[in-house]
Amino acid sequence: MDAGLLSPVWAGTEVAALVRDEDWLAAMLTAEAGLAAAQATLGVIPSPAAAVIASVAARSGLDLVALAVKARDAANPVVGLVSAFTAEVAGTDSAAAEYVHKGGTSQDILDTAAMLVASRAFAVIDTDLRRTAGALTRLAAEYRLTPMAGRTLTQHAVPVTFGLKAAGWLSLVLDSLDRVGALTFPASLGGAAGTQASYVEAAGAGPEHGLELATAFASALGLADPGIPWHALRTPLADIASVTTHICGALGKLALDVQGMTRTEVAEVAEPTAEGRGISSAMPQKQNPVLAAMIMSAARQVPLYATVLQQSMVCEDERSAGAWHAEWQALREVLRLTGGAAATAAELAEGLRVFPDRLRANLELTDGAVVSERLSMVLAPLLGKTAAKKLLGRVALAGDGPFEEALLADPEVAEKLDAETVRGLLDPSGYLGSSGLLVDRVLERARSVLA
Amino acid sequence: MDAGLLSPVWAGTEVAALVRDEDWLAAMLTAEAGLAAAQATLGVIPSPAAAVIASVAARSGLDLVALAVKARDAANPVVGLVSAFTAEVAGTDSAAAEYVHKGGTSQDILDTAAMLVASRAFAVIDTDLRRTAGALTRLAAEYRLTPMAGRTLTQHAVPVTFGLKAAGWLSLVLDSLDRVGALTFPASLGGAAGTQASYVEAAGAGPEHGLELATAFASALGLADPGIPWHALRTPLADIASVTTHICGALGKLALDVQGMTRTEVAEVAEPTAEGRGISSAMPQKQNPVLAAMIMSAARQVPLYATVLQQSMVCEDERSAGAWHAEWQALREVLRLTGGAAATAAELAEGLRVFPDRLRANLELTDGAVVSERLSMVLAPLLGKTAAKKLLGRVALAGDGPFEEALLADPEVAEKLDAETVRGLLDPSGYLGSSGLLVDRVLERARSVLA
Amino acid sequence: MDAGLLSPVWAGTEVAALVRDEDWLAAMLTAEAGLAAAQATLGVIPSPAAAVIASVAARSGLDLVALAVKARDAANPVVGLVSAFTAEVAGTDSAAAEYVHKGGTSQDILDTAAMLVASRAFAVIDTDLRRTAGALTRLAAEYRLTPMAGRTLTQHAVPVTFGLKAAGWLSLVLDSLDRVGALTFPASLGGAAGTQASYVEAAGAGPEHGLELATAFASALGLADPGIPWHALRTPLADIASVTTHICGALGKLALDVQGMTRTEVAEVAEPTAEGRGISSAMPQKQNPVLAAMIMSAARQVPLYATVLQQSMVCEDERSAGAWHAEWQALREVLRLTGGAAATAAELAEGLRVFPDRLRANLELTDGAVVSERLSMVLAPLLGKTAAKKLLGRVALAGDGPFEEALLADPEVAEKLDAETVRGLLDPSGYLGSSGLLVDRVLERARSVLA
Amino acid sequence: MDAGLLSPVWAGTEVAALVRDEDWLAAMLTAEAGLAAAQATLGVIPSPAAAVIASVAARSGLDLVALAVKARDAANPVVGLVSAFTAEVAGTDSAAAEYVHKGGTSQDILDTAAMLVASRAFAVIDTDLRRTAGALTRLAAEYRLTPMAGRTLTQHAVPVTFGLKAAGWLSLVLDSLDRVGALTFPASLGGAAGTQASYVEAAGAGPEHGLELATAFASALGLADPGIPWHALRTPLADIASVTTHICGALGKLALDVQGMTRTEVAEVAEPTAEGRGISSAMPQKQNPVLAAMIMSAARQVPLYATVLQQSMVCEDERSAGAWHAEWQALREVLRLTGGAAATAAELAEGLRVFPDRLRANLELTDGAVVSERLSMVLAPLLGKTAAKKLLGRVALAGDGPFEEALLADPEVAEKLDAETVRGLLDPSGYLGSSGLLVDRVLERARSVLA
Repeated sequence: MDAGLLSPVWAGTEVAALVRDEDWLAAMLTAEAGLAAAQATLGVIPSPAAAVIASVAARSGLDLVALAVKARDAANPVVGLVSAFTAEVAGTDSAAAEYVHKGGTSQDILDTAAMLVASRAFAVIDTDLRRTAGALTRLAAEYRLTPMAGRTLTQHAVPVTFGLKAAGWLSLVLDSLDRVGALTFPASLGGAAGTQASYVEAAGAGPEHGLELATAFASALGLADPGIPWHALRTPLADIASVTTHICGALGKLALDVQGMTRTEVAEVAEPTAEGRGISSAMPQKQNPVLAAMIMSAARQVPLYATVLQQSMVCEDERSAGAWHAEWQALREVLRLTGGAAATAAELAEGLRVFPDRLRANLELTDGAVVSERLSMVLAPLLGKTAAKKLLGRVALAGDGPFEEALLADPEVAEKLDAETVRGLLDPSGYLGSSGLLVDRVLERARSVLA
Repeated sequence: MDAGLLSPVWAGTEVAALVRDEDWLAAMLTAEAGLAAAQATLGVIPSPAAAVIASVAARSGLDLVALAVKARDAANPVVGLVSAFTAEVAGTDSAAAEYVHKGGTSQDILDTAAMLVASRAFAVIDTDLRRTAGALTRLAAEYRLTPMAGRTLTQHAVPVTFGLKAAGWLSLVLDSLDRVGALTFPASLGGAAGTQASYVEAAGAGPEHGLELATAFASALGLADPGIPWHALRTPLADIASVTTHICGALGKLALDVQGMTRTEVAEVAEPTAEGRGISSAMPQKQNPVLAAMIMSAARQVPLYATVLQQSMVCEDERSAGAWHAEWQALREVLRLTGGAAATAAELAEGLRVFPDRLRANLELTDGAVVSERLSMVLAPLLGKTAAKKLLGRVALAGDGPFEEALLADPEVAEKLDAETVRGLLDPSGYLGSSGLLVDRVLERARSVLA
Repeated sequence: MDAGLLSPVWAGTEVAALVRDEDWLAAMLTAEAGLAAAQATLGVIPSPAAAVIASVAARSGLDLVALAVKARDAANPVVGLVSAFTAEVAGTDSAAAEYVHKGGTSQDILDTAAMLVASRAFAVIDTDLRRTAGALTRLAAEYRLTPMAGRTLTQHAVPVTFGLKAAGWLSLVLDSLDRVGALTFPASLGGAAGTQASYVEAAGAGPEHGLELATAFASALGLADPGIPWHALRTPLADIASVTTHICGALGKLALDVQGMTRTEVAEVAEPTAEGRGISSAMPQKQNPVLAAMIMSAARQVPLYATVLQQSMVCEDERSAGAWHAEWQALREVLRLTGGAAATAAELAEGLRVFPDRLRANLELTDGAVVSERLSMVLAPLLGKTAAKKLLGRVALAGDGPFEEALLADPEVAEKLDAETVRGLLDPSGYLGSSGLLVDRVLERARSVLA
Repeated sequence: MDAGLLSPVWAGTEVAALVRDEDWLAAMLTAEAGLAAAQATLGVIPSPAAAVIASVAARSGLDLVALAVKARDAANPVVGLVSAFTAEVAGTDSAAAEYVHKGGTSQDILDTAAMLVASRAFAVIDTDLRRTAGALTRLAAEYRLTPMAGRTLTQHAVPVTFGLKAAGWLSLVLDSLDRVGALTFPASLGGAAGTQASYVEAAGAGPEHGLELATAFASALGLADPGIPWHALRTPLADIASVTTHICGALGKLALDVQGMTRTEVAEVAEPTAEGRGISSAMPQKQNPVLAAMIMSAARQVPLYATVLQQSMVCEDERSAGAWHAEWQALREVLRLTGGAAATAAELAEGLRVFPDRLRANLELTDGAVVSERLSMVLAPLLGKTAAKKLLGRVALAGDGPFEEALLADPEVAEKLDAETVRGLLDPSGYLGSSGLLVDRVLERARSVLA
């Protein structure tokens, strides 16, 4: 039993119910039914037999635990499944049983099932990324010009806007959506070693049958036509690896920023509250940013699990003895962790609470030093670039009271700039650069992607 | 449900039944009971209350799925568990319920449970590594001086012995056993932020109570005394990561070599047969080396999952918001994959079939060229090192019939060595170096480690 | 000094000369010159000053070692570089020196330089992948219907053709080329925290200036317009990570298959010979497949180094304190390892020697058992599916002499099939399925991609 | 050239000068000289020849770049090196040249050189870890009972002490030191395929010669006796991988905590200042925590590069065609990144500035809510556990002004506790648990390890 006790990020989420052992088993049976249907369409097997196969597949009562243990015999679950499923079909119609898995090979069934499972998971992931993007769109628009401290290497740097920050998160999610949209989920139909010979033999047809059957098989299952068999050509899985890694990277960036902004000392945003959420077992005052923590748990795991998939591209011969077998659990994990992260991110983005007064208070913490870059640029033509920077560094780092005061008190500054000018220059909202237009650019892209 | 359908390497093995969600839940309840027991021992709570807590923990009927979903509230399963378990205890004895999780914090319970689960898994792993080592000991001894082709960069190089190869595998397994033996599984008792303040407060005692309670807690559970709280000091998990990676590296080396030797063209060894094992769904002639393939599936995954654990050392503050949460599933996976690989390796090593005639046939495939290094060394003093090597390269790579024949026909060789000498030098069993003594050295170590 | 002594895969290759420290330094200076040029175009600084800056950048004699050590002060090399380069410019024209790095920030310069370096490296990689694809196209066409043993889980499975195998390698390389073609290399122009405020301030212009300057900057350098600043939005690097991983996966698959086929016992292909290549320091008979070994060395490293880049997507704030800094060396490595692997693969594919007699000899090794799947399908309607498979398994695995003979001697077989039919069915070239058409499909795609 | 421009963490540090291509080349020559010396000791070659070889090795002027390019011929640098070095020796003494690399194989030289390089690097790493530990010892002792906010999941949790935090960092560094101390650096002496046959042949001796020569060789070089050849048994490198990963994990934890504490809003510690350090190219007010950022850059890379080494345990045959070749660059990187991180951490720890007033100010930020756990425990017996926690949660999260005030104003609290008691309970220094004793325990261990 793996109910998600150790992975709260996906426990109880929609994606979790699509990738269980039960779901993989059902997808394998769907693949067997799809094969029979495609073969019936092309006249290789009788249509009634295909109908029986489909019907038994849909109501199959195979023993999952027994199949899992039996999978040790073949190092994959399909051999045992074919045998058990054939017996099940025979129980209904012994003639139809002869047509089960006709010309089939384990990898065609398992790879096709994997693509069925993955495509269903990505449909959910896509929806949750769109929800996330929608919520971030609203935040970016609402806080388009709300100044806050921009931070680099942990230190206040220059002002940014919260809208720009949200637009940055949004642009990453849009990047992810682009990549999800480019994925294809091909059926697999190669026969024992990728020549489709068994299917051709089974049909007693010419070599073109292999290609036609692949097309019909894919079509019956709503998957992409594979073009050529991909048993040992693992681009589809490498792409899923890259895309799930990108998604978790994008959402991880969002989560890590939210964590930084929820720190007790910073307190600029807070996660959405919900009954019972974020509480500690012992500390009554705590409200933990648990959504971000769960997203981070996925962002830390997925790139490594995805690497298993990417390394499995390097596999020997027509079917490897290990690389293929390493993929299945890794694939399940990247799907459900990414799905859980996306669902959690949608919840986080839709309910994120923003505290503009705290944004401002923190921005004012350095008493204007956060715009010393601007002052430096204003003073540069008057004092020289190096001298200007040196002067401001001296004032800012001296620790002689508030920056504004120290600046006004500095004779060198006073000689060049009057107090009012200095005060004007120290207003962070005057130093936001192209922030608003940059936000607009992302919003425009979002409208197009989310349309 | 995760019965191992996607991970045949551990499906149905002993370790799989130790690391399920159910087992983690039971271990968390054991930790709660252990805390109560330790506090009773030190007089912090009444002994009868501790007894009730232990008894309810042992027969607890908590709803695993509900707890998993509930874990999303706190980003960990303990907060919900404490609440549900307290209610369960209250159902038996409402006074005792007040003593559940007294001074406790989520991480103490979960980390302690993780160590309980890990220590049980490693007990099984240790046993299976010992079985593997025992079997390899027998192979190394039996084939101590049985020559076979040594291969480097895929090509026959010089002769080795099968016993030396087995001794090499054995030495890696002994290395793994050493590392397993050095692991410690500490209990975790830090309180909310590692000061043990809540436990001290609960006891109304002095600061030494924290240390004493940790000792009593560890002792009650059969775990190691933690010394200091390790909430944010993750050496115990980093060590498990390193050790599981080593084990899977060691067993992966064995599996990869077995795969190379079972190739149709090589056929020097074969996996143990068993009813139904290694069969293909379509090809009647196949006998797939499935044990090695399953071991490889683990060897490809574990180093990456282990990296999650190692990267979680870099965690912020007194408890991180993500690094900790990323560990649990990764830990479970490295334990059961390693456990499955060890059980499978024991089966493989104990039943490995060795075909000495094939070892010899392959060794003779190059008609003596496999000892051209030796000839080169014999000819070097006679012709000069470079000239000797050049001559032999020319003969070996000319492709003019068998090497021995070509060599004897070469006038330059004939001038220096008579035919009988050449034939004697070409005997692979005469060029085994220290193989036998190296085998002995490993066998001696094995005797000491396995004693 | 890092001349590639530890990385023969790229030592002396074209890509190696594009990613050295010297090249990064030059690219940073190019970025500074590009900034000045763009600002001159938009009237922010005087054109003569930009010309001086460009000219000094082109002939700069900065001390690389000193800059590297100095980089420790800022945790990046740009701060020191700007200071030293400004002094260099001042040596020529002190007025122009005031315009160096105007409004600039370290990350704009370094990220832009990284994209310059990467785009140059990918131009070479693209060329070498096209060379590889071209060579594989020829192999796939030439050996379109040349039968050989298809292998799964290390065992002979059913026949394939060498052309189909080459077409498979080719299709992976075409997948890689598609992904290389989709990469973009954006300039970076965000200012201190991604608002472009310093550039706007320097221009004394409105907010639209930031966007315009970014466009002009990118255009001056031949890079893509960034759209928005990407200091903390690392999709460009994550994409490079995914694509280099894919390339090394594709080439690693090719290399691993070549290694399997060059094994002494298999000997179906050999690497191109060259004076001094593949020799051993001690064994005169050796001809090591060194090209494949070097490709494998890259394929084993790149997915891990690429993971550094992918994990750096999770970076805090407007500029992270570590994630950014971890990227540079990892980026250099994935570029040069991938570039070296591509150059090596082109050499390997263009010169690969194929031995059709060995392909056939190995295919005949099982005396026809390699097509027992076909026999099984022919016998299935006569005996029932299960009985047919059982019968053939019995014959194939009995080890009673050659398969064909044993088959003909089997009374059950003889009852159903005459000897001539059996002999006909045992011809591997009769069981190639759609191989030829699948090859054609890949060749057609190659024509389109390589056109 | 790789001067560290892209890796400031090690640029200019001591370790960087030990792992350059030049250093590897020198180490390979040292290995050749060591082999000759050992063979002279055992009477296999004349002592004067060994002396000549040693002398030429010590002043060798081999062309590194040429050797690197030449390394492509053999996929490793040794074959070319032996040839070039033999010519160099012949230039001095043609008779001695015949004894160069006698019985040698590439891997013996390269693996032995790797161990020489690694052992030198670890000597420096050990020293810098000891410096770091020494500095942390002083911090732990000085701030043993200085209270500060303990933080979990980004939020103030309960008080800890800065001394306990430093003791935690220290304990990780001590763990690292233990692991460094357990490393061994074995010489490699296996001959072509690990049987030592060529050395035995060269000596014209019995099989015991292989073992004796290995011992003499190791002794000549100050390396550990290998026991048995480890060409394909990569425990020594897997151990280095684990240990460097642990070190970077330990130092990464320190760095990440320092980064959190240096945030502008937190400002509890600051990095040591130095002329020019931490400055920004544009923002005069900035003082970036660059030491921590550099350490983090290593901590993010090393676990991945180390995984290359760990995965190379899974290598085929007596010498793999890729796994071995993937190790060299990865090994160099983990050594110099770890060495750089250790040097940087020593600098950071020795100069870390601690601001007790900021520790206190932050601790008081929640106006006592940081000890609500304690209050909860005090109220539990009076109100029941659940009710007590609920009450305090309500007060803490209501946001009705300061916690202390709100608490005193609460009628339910007032009924149970008088104001003075409440005020006493709210003092964070009263809720430090076993912090002092835990610090003492780590200090005691440090004294023992650092002695």
